[in-house]
Amino acid sequence: MKIWDKGVSLDSQIESYTVGNDNLIDLHFLKYDCIASIAHAKMLFKIGVLTKKELDLLTTALNEIIDLGAKNKFKIEQSDEDCSSAIEKYLVLKCGDAGKKIHTARSRNDQILSAIRLYERDSLSQITTLSNEFIRSCKNAIKKWGNLSMPGYTHMQRAMPTTVGDWIGCYHDAMKDNSYLIDANQKLIDQSPLGTGAGYGIPVFEIDRNFCAKELNYCKVLQNPIYAQHTRPKFEASILSALCAINYDLNKFATDLVLFNTCEFGFVKLPKNFTTGSSIMPQKKNPDVLELMRAKYHIVLADELKIKSLMSNLMFGYNRDAQLTKEPLVNSIEITKSSLKIASLLLDKIEFDKTNLQNATSDELYATKRAYELAKKGVAFRDAYKQVGKKYL
Amino acid sequence: MKIWDKGVSLDSQIESYTVGNDNLIDLHFLKYDCIASIAHAKMLFKIGVLTKKELDLLTTALNEIIDLGAKNKFKIEQSDEDCSSAIEKYLVLKCGDAGKKIHTARSRNDQILSAIRLYERDSLSQITTLSNEFIRSCKNAIKKWGNLSMPGYTHMQRAMPTTVGDWIGCYHDAMKDNSYLIDANQKLIDQSPLGTGAGYGIPVFEIDRNFCAKELNYCKVLQNPIYAQHTRPKFEASILSALCAINYDLNKFATDLVLFNTCEFGFVKLPKNFTTGSSIMPQKKNPDVLELMRAKYHIVLADELKIKSLMSNLMFGYNRDAQLTKEPLVNSIEITKSSLKIASLLLDKIEFDKTNLQNATSDELYATKRAYELAKKGVAFRDAYKQVGKKYL
Amino acid sequence: MKIWDKGVSLDSQIESYTVGNDNLIDLHFLKYDCIASIAHAKMLFKIGVLTKKELDLLTTALNEIIDLGAKNKFKIEQSDEDCSSAIEKYLVLKCGDAGKKIHTARSRNDQILSAIRLYERDSLSQITTLSNEFIRSCKNAIKKWGNLSMPGYTHMQRAMPTTVGDWIGCYHDAMKDNSYLIDANQKLIDQSPLGTGAGYGIPVFEIDRNFCAKELNYCKVLQNPIYAQHTRPKFEASILSALCAINYDLNKFATDLVLFNTCEFGFVKLPKNFTTGSSIMPQKKNPDVLELMRAKYHIVLADELKIKSLMSNLMFGYNRDAQLTKEPLVNSIEITKSSLKIASLLLDKIEFDKTNLQNATSDELYATKRAYELAKKGVAFRDAYKQVGKKYL
Amino acid sequence: MKIWDKGVSLDSQIESYTVGNDNLIDLHFLKYDCIASIAHAKMLFKIGVLTKKELDLLTTALNEIIDLGAKNKFKIEQSDEDCSSAIEKYLVLKCGDAGKKIHTARSRNDQILSAIRLYERDSLSQITTLSNEFIRSCKNAIKKWGNLSMPGYTHMQRAMPTTVGDWIGCYHDAMKDNSYLIDANQKLIDQSPLGTGAGYGIPVFEIDRNFCAKELNYCKVLQNPIYAQHTRPKFEASILSALCAINYDLNKFATDLVLFNTCEFGFVKLPKNFTTGSSIMPQKKNPDVLELMRAKYHIVLADELKIKSLMSNLMFGYNRDAQLTKEPLVNSIEITKSSLKIASLLLDKIEFDKTNLQNATSDELYATKRAYELAKKGVAFRDAYKQVGKKYL
Repeated sequence: MKIWDKGVSLDSQIESYTVGNDNLIDLHFLKYDCIASIAHAKMLFKIGVLTKKELDLLTTALNEIIDLGAKNKFKIEQSDEDCSSAIEKYLVLKCGDAGKKIHTARSRNDQILSAIRLYERDSLSQITTLSNEFIRSCKNAIKKWGNLSMPGYTHMQRAMPTTVGDWIGCYHDAMKDNSYLIDANQKLIDQSPLGTGAGYGIPVFEIDRNFCAKELNYCKVLQNPIYAQHTRPKFEASILSALCAINYDLNKFATDLVLFNTCEFGFVKLPKNFTTGSSIMPQKKNPDVLELMRAKYHIVLADELKIKSLMSNLMFGYNRDAQLTKEPLVNSIEITKSSLKIASLLLDKIEFDKTNLQNATSDELYATKRAYELAKKGVAFRDAYKQVGKKYL
Repeated sequence: MKIWDKGVSLDSQIESYTVGNDNLIDLHFLKYDCIASIAHAKMLFKIGVLTKKELDLLTTALNEIIDLGAKNKFKIEQSDEDCSSAIEKYLVLKCGDAGKKIHTARSRNDQILSAIRLYERDSLSQITTLSNEFIRSCKNAIKKWGNLSMPGYTHMQRAMPTTVGDWIGCYHDAMKDNSYLIDANQKLIDQSPLGTGAGYGIPVFEIDRNFCAKELNYCKVLQNPIYAQHTRPKFEASILSALCAINYDLNKFATDLVLFNTCEFGFVKLPKNFTTGSSIMPQKKNPDVLELMRAKYHIVLADELKIKSLMSNLMFGYNRDAQLTKEPLVNSIEITKSSLKIASLLLDKIEFDKTNLQNATSDELYATKRAYELAKKGVAFRDAYKQVGKKYL
Repeated sequence: MKIWDKGVSLDSQIESYTVGNDNLIDLHFLKYDCIASIAHAKMLFKIGVLTKKELDLLTTALNEIIDLGAKNKFKIEQSDEDCSSAIEKYLVLKCGDAGKKIHTARSRNDQILSAIRLYERDSLSQITTLSNEFIRSCKNAIKKWGNLSMPGYTHMQRAMPTTVGDWIGCYHDAMKDNSYLIDANQKLIDQSPLGTGAGYGIPVFEIDRNFCAKELNYCKVLQNPIYAQHTRPKFEASILSALCAINYDLNKFATDLVLFNTCEFGFVKLPKNFTTGSSIMPQKKNPDVLELMRAKYHIVLADELKIKSLMSNLMFGYNRDAQLTKEPLVNSIEITKSSLKIASLLLDKIEFDKTNLQNATSDELYATKRAYELAKKGVAFRDAYKQVGKKYL
Repeated sequence: MKIWDKGVSLDSQIESYTVGNDNLIDLHFLKYDCIASIAHAKMLFKIGVLTKKELDLLTTALNEIIDLGAKNKFKIEQSDEDCSSAIEKYLVLKCGDAGKKIHTARSRNDQILSAIRLYERDSLSQITTLSNEFIRSCKNAIKKWGNLSMPGYTHMQRAMPTTVGDWIGCYHDAMKDNSYLIDANQKLIDQSPLGTGAGYGIPVFEIDRNFCAKELNYCKVLQNPIYAQHTRPKFEASILSALCAINYDLNKFATDLVLFNTCEFGFVKLPKNFTTGSSIMPQKKNPDVLELMRAKYHIVLADELKIKSLMSNLMFGYNRDAQLTKEPLVNSIEITKSSLKIASLLLDKIEFDKTNLQNATSDELYATKRAYELAKKGVAFRDAYKQVGKKYL
């Protein structure tokens, strides 16, 4: 069943091509679509479109869907296209005419937009929690290993001495700063799109958008319906930029650890049950988990690009192209959550090798110090630099 | 069961993070892994590692897997990690010791590389067939509609007269030229990687790489085992560039048709069962199929970028990051095949609106012709241009 | 002269390859490098490294460089590599030993980082001003044209009625929301990197980082020196994401106007002196300015990707790769500033065509209204939808 | 002077925004524009539009421009917009009416397209030469260092033994295979676009396109004028994909060498005059040249994306957006040429450290060999693997 069914059935090849895997992706939005639908139904009751009985029927059915979804028991058929159609089908089946009425004064466009925004709000808040756990793991690891000396590098060459504490501290501070980006995005999306219809508002009915916004805990209503559609990729792109920043930090964190874990550097040891083996080399203990954390940054980066390229050069108003922004959004949110979890786990379990670190803190790391000591005694720095440098020509 | 199992079980969070959806993606390679495995087994028999009976057992079992796969009845568990492990598990179960022997003198690295390359060869050949069907559809459409006049545009402004034939001809020629790119990639991948092991060849056993190459219809053996691993993302990236070229043509084809299908242009009509409706606007007949064809180009572009970004700045030799190149490869191949099919279907069914096209072929399209007529009479072209231009200031 | 000169001259091919056009790009940072150098010199005086006389000499010379730079009279030679070396060369020439002392207790790494951050702070503040001017132009244009009706589109098909005011309002609101992103980035970069040296702090000397931070109006000191280097691409990437959001809005704004400006839509007229002509078609008045505004979004997008891809998979600490993040940063800032200016100018001068807009506001735009009127009378919405829809089958 | 001047001067802000740095970029095409213009003039003489005297005047003047260009003495003013206008201005000045006639029967569109294609043909041929030099340097380096043992890595972990010869051989083979891609692109662009006008052919005059094609050594004429415009970004994008493949090889080559050059690996030594120093650390010898070779891959990748994203979702026919494809094309060609040169130079001069390589060829590299020896004695491989693996648990 399609929400827009008019008695002409869609060519089956076209249907399969246009629906794609939307029915699977939309399961991520199902709960949020129901929550927004309950708010909408309450509003319809408030303005007299639904009776109390109809509202109760619909609310009960929508809560059923949420429950079924939580148990992975709500299925969206490919012929349903998306969660909006699947929900309406269920409501018509369970609530009869009330089900046919719920779509009054809204469009699939503001319906799915509302669901996506609620999903994003929840996801960003989960990501904040997971970031804070990573920050906590950094703090603990600094307590455990922070005082160990290690070489600092520039150009991958030994440069000056540093500590494991400063190295972990870098990722600690990086993750803290990401909150500016997450918070900015939480503010951006804190505007209720419900009631903007298909991008041109709702004629005839006097809907109460503020009521819905309050029900859904938005701080304000997104007023301009054309802008509501414009935000569809704009806010998603912006969220992905923030996720990209988080994954960039994890990319560098993992890259460092892969290197520290080589036999040549030997700065860290991974727990045995964190490494994998080879199909032919019996000795191997591979840090696949680190390599994949490094690699997943690029997936998020490509997802960001996908959304930003996809929706460019297009006329205002909804274009079906927007459909394809859902998968990269969901995908990158899932990656970010799992990578943050794994990164915390790694920090909790990894061991630094004191002996190897000590051996690596070699003499040339102190060349700058020696030049500075000369400079402090009054030699112009550039001359002190040349004097010390001679040794290393 | 993991092919590299050594008695220490992998942390479950790490397992789930590292395997991801590889077990699903690998179903695309299952058949090709079996085909390469049969060739490998025959070679092992030839060099005396397997007995005839063992070879027969293995060949039978591998063909069973191909059959099960074709019927969607072969499942790769997440705990199997990938198709290589799942196949080995099946072979050990069915063939006992012979199953344990098949991995002699190969690595999962050259095994999956062989499977991927055979998959690519087949896919590129399917894409060539589908491109040729598109070219044929162009020819038929030119026969039907080619003589109709239509405005040519530059800067989206009416420029000079052209014909529907030339417009379709553009996509006809574009698709023909894509064969240079597809063919170059077919040549690139026509090198057998089987026998390169984990990137450093096979010690001890005197394997016959030429035998395997011939069994698998390769024109030559990829000799350098380090290069074999280097090609893993390099060739995939190159294939995606070629697919990107095809999808670019379809992006423009679809963009034009979306525009031609607007009420303002009105140059074409889509069959009713090709369009979708709106959830609130009863009059709508939306060209979603065209919008998605346009949009899918960007998915392929992002997939290409994904592979190209993912594998950069990494040391030689296999890195697990390569795992994540499989999904964009499969994804973009599937998109290309389906978009080509749909594009042919569209060309076969679309109708051009003669009246609207005629009305659009307006006077200003002939301004250049008038200037050229003056020039032919001897007026210097730049002066003729200024003279005709005055009318349009 | 190179700041790190040790008596071995660099191979000339290598020099030309590594310096590239850095000497030109760095002119954008020259003023800010001098400002940070003055703060650093004051601090060196405060801790007793420089005498008052030396400080005065250096301050005078640095202000001279700022003046020369403002008049495009300060040249950075390719052999100087970058602005830091060119400045030091000038200071040694003008101030003798004081010039050799200024690099005490700092590295080119924190020097250029400081310059870049001050440049970014200024640029973002200019961009905020220009965004506000665009917002003001939107308001004025809404006053002039806002009440005109125009068709709203979905899928590029006429959907429901809207107004020019809502269309302009979309871009007004979009630009306002960008301030969340700009502000978050202003907060991110409001941390003084001066004193972090080459990423491992400054040994021997007891520098006063807070003093420098106050001199340069930072709200806090960026403490962790490893993190300072980590921010080099991270903050730049984040700034580019914000600029990308602005340019995305302008991309859509320009795309709409190119379409509105076609003969088929005919909704707007560009001033004559905003359009260009063709070399052969005397009638053409092309909206190049709009096409380039549309196109420049993609340059910013590619610049963002460049920075994000470039610095991935690299070890912690400074890597020379970071050099190549300067050009996309400067480039995208310049694009954003010029595109915002041009967009305001366009809004101020463009004219909407009342007649064409009226003619385009056709009957089918009211189909939803009619369905809603039935729904208001009590017909279940889905039934009302089908009833009205019949007319358009 | 603008080629399309009609007496209304362009707003100065708009002019500066639309021209950008095109006048500088176009210097790369100047010579090729003149060459194509000479062919066009000869054809105009052949069909009677120009007299012999006019042809001679024009040919002389066009050769003068080529000479001036070669000496960097031909300037394109911003007010000229591009090389086509600057050339026409020069010709009118030098040849009077003949100069005004040369644009007969062509458009700036096919003029610049012809120039770009000739530039591409030349550049690809230079790149082939430079690739062959790199291949030769590989061969020489293999002769010098090829027999040295070194560890092979997977997951950056020591895996199995290999040789310096195989490591260099990988890049040798990679570069050889790139010729498939370069050749495919040479075939793609071997179609003369001259005579396709602004994308809709040339009315009135009976031009001889085959004559021009032969003059310019094309193997065929690009017939469909709409396709000619379609190829503008399509072929450039395809060329950039091929350049990206070359730079990918160099990215890995440089990444390996940066790692080999660390104190921890110590496999190679760079000549002193190939490394740079630090502004504060006297001991540093940094491999900037390698880092930049690694980094420049990402510039080419971003350039490729730029072209591929820029021109998507646009209507057929010339759009001004195409202007912005010139800079990434030129930029990536220049990068590729310089990186190839530097890579050859590096291979010629680099030294491998025999002692360090020997020390690194450690025992665990032979674990696979030991398992295979057991397997050869009849132990099923999977059992042999487990037996050897016990030692490394």
